[in-house]
Amino acid sequence: MIGSIEVCCFRLQQGQLQLLISQRKTEPFINQYALIGGGIAPQQDQHLDDTVNRCLQQKTQLQPHYLEQVSSQADPHRDPRGWSVCFLYLAVFRPQQKVHANCKWVNVYDLLNSPVKLAFDHKALVETALNRLLNKSQYSSLPVYFLGASFTLPELQQCFESILQTQLPKAAFRRRLNRPEIMLETGEKDHSQNRPAKLYAMAAPKQLYFFDQLMKGSPTKALT
Amino acid sequence: MIGSIEVCCFRLQQGQLQLLISQRKTEPFINQYALIGGGIAPQQDQHLDDTVNRCLQQKTQLQPHYLEQVSSQADPHRDPRGWSVCFLYLAVFRPQQKVHANCKWVNVYDLLNSPVKLAFDHKALVETALNRLLNKSQYSSLPVYFLGASFTLPELQQCFESILQTQLPKAAFRRRLNRPEIMLETGEKDHSQNRPAKLYAMAAPKQLYFFDQLMKGSPTKALT
Repeated sequence: MIGSIEVCCFRLQQGQLQLLISQRKTEPFINQYALIGGGIAPQQDQHLDDTVNRCLQQKTQLQPHYLEQVSSQADPHRDPRGWSVCFLYLAVFRPQQKVHANCKWVNVYDLLNSPVKLAFDHKALVETALNRLLNKSQYSSLPVYFLGASFTLPELQQCFESILQTQLPKAAFRRRLNRPEIMLETGEKDHSQNRPAKLYAMAAPKQLYFFDQLMKGSPTKALT
Repeated sequence: MIGSIEVCCFRLQQGQLQLLISQRKTEPFINQYALIGGGIAPQQDQHLDDTVNRCLQQKTQLQPHYLEQVSSQADPHRDPRGWSVCFLYLAVFRPQQKVHANCKWVNVYDLLNSPVKLAFDHKALVETALNRLLNKSQYSSLPVYFLGASFTLPELQQCFESILQTQLPKAAFRRRLNRPEIMLETGEKDHSQNRPAKLYAMAAPKQLYFFDQLMKGSPTKALT
């Protein structure tokens, strides 16, 4: 049985949702683009998360800001070498992070709408992970992980709007997000605009906050 | 690499949430109770769902009314035979189904609160699947799968209340559930009570309906 992990690495760059892909150096699918991933090495990896972190480190030099397992796929067709199992992860990175030369960030919708083929079943994996990201951004604080260590309220709203591809009413958005369980004032201000804006940081960097109502103005796709 | 599936099989019986366990006939953990599961057989199983259905058929003779993959676990400790991967599923069954003699339905909370040890890491798997069931019952029509082919509105409300362990306001509950996307009148009535009650059936038996607001009066645990 062939076992691997594949990671859909997302970041927001100037309002664009981008995905990290890398060019394969080996068969099968040599030279085609693929997700960041790799084989499970039982001797080295105590847990699947160890495999993920090892592969990300080796192939991208990046540390994810947020990581979750999305699903597992297993069948005899997805890998030409035989019956295989793949653990799909969703990872979020902060903007402007440098990666290895054979990796590149691409607009995820451009990729999905283009005739470019990714190796294996990776295009379908991207759709699965993107769906999870969009749904979870409707009912949780997940988008906060796309931002830097500190951020302003307009930046936070733009972040949700970029991911959900919708406009959100400002007052309702702030009522929902600006609470001490989610974010705290850092005491500093961003002076890059005409009116200096308060800077915030995540309150509990390791924890998602779940809303009891879906984000208004959001798409109506089903939760997964 | 050892690969297996494990299924948390749930049913509601007289208001009790029950889990199906079976006694192991082989080492390791011989004679201990365990979840329903089995090894992946790449020669027989095209997909993981095939493994699940084959194991359920062989070990219980049951067909699930609802099935979803919850998560995957993999590490060198969970199976004494070596590094192993397990795909955890959540399955829902209708009440009063007969099972093989070495299986039994037990109250899931009694099991979790008892000193009884399940084989492997199965007690932790039960907690993971139960958590998913409780959370998803707050924001989707999942509990409908616990009912028979037709049901009355009071039965449906009791079903949600038994799972969520809470009382729900009748009018708000009916406003949310009694809609053609979720359920349809069968045209028949249940005459077992003094006042005959309309019978309903699921509208789209293969589809969950997602609410845009959590079920009121429900526990406040985080969604997963």
